[in-house]
Amino acid sequence: MSDMPAQDPAGPTQEFVSDVFARGCTSRAAFEDVTSKWASLALLALGEGRYRFNALRRRIDGVSERMLSQTLQTLERDGMLTREVLTAIPPRVEYSLTPLGARVAEQLRGLADLLEASVPELQTARDSRERDRG
Amino acid sequence: MSDMPAQDPAGPTQEFVSDVFARGCTSRAAFEDVTSKWASLALLALGEGRYRFNALRRRIDGVSERMLSQTLQTLERDGMLTREVLTAIPPRVEYSLTPLGARVAEQLRGLADLLEASVPELQTARDSRERDRG
Repeated sequence: MSDMPAQDPAGPTQEFVSDVFARGCTSRAAFEDVTSKWASLALLALGEGRYRFNALRRRIDGVSERMLSQTLQTLERDGMLTREVLTAIPPRVEYSLTPLGARVAEQLRGLADLLEASVPELQTARDSRERDRG
Repeated sequence: MSDMPAQDPAGPTQEFVSDVFARGCTSRAAFEDVTSKWASLALLALGEGRYRFNALRRRIDGVSERMLSQTLQTLERDGMLTREVLTAIPPRVEYSLTPLGARVAEQLRGLADLLEASVPELQTARDSRERDRG
């Protein structure tokens, strides 16, 4: 329409606000990636130090080779970890966290610490729900 | 065997160590529950205040009625939230966090804040991976 304000040639001063609640936001995708079932445990494990694939698989009780492999690929794409191939016979592949991955792992460790310390509370909640049902 | 040490009648002093890495541990189940796709966003939303079901559904961009309902049931069973039926016509149901749920939500908010602040870094990681592939 002719009465629309003319566009500033420099473009409007627009601040990009990221929001995990917004489906299109990169932070939402990353939040889903790092909190997904195996990714969160992989990040926690790598927060302890570098791991080779098989050692990492043993650390994460219950993960399949395929799921761990997919999980590590996603986390690498998000810039959370680095995959390093070491020249050896047979070649060794080691995974370690990037600085961003380490910060994310620290947050997840805080959550894990809280839940590990809350087992009595969690158990009471479950027991009382089961009593209500019985 | 006869040379086994006699059992202390009071039982050994054994401390229960909870561990999110152990598949049988209550903390592992709770960790999976609160980090699951919709639960983490529901906890984040309820960290902002009480919500009615439909308002919560609108807040969590993309969740279906069925998934939100299942998610809230799981979180209630884990003692993370309280479901309150208010006498009104029609009756109103409101959800709010328990003290444990509030502490969990705080941890998740820390993770969300970190990722929201890391969008440029996340984008760079994704872009460079796509360049490598192209």
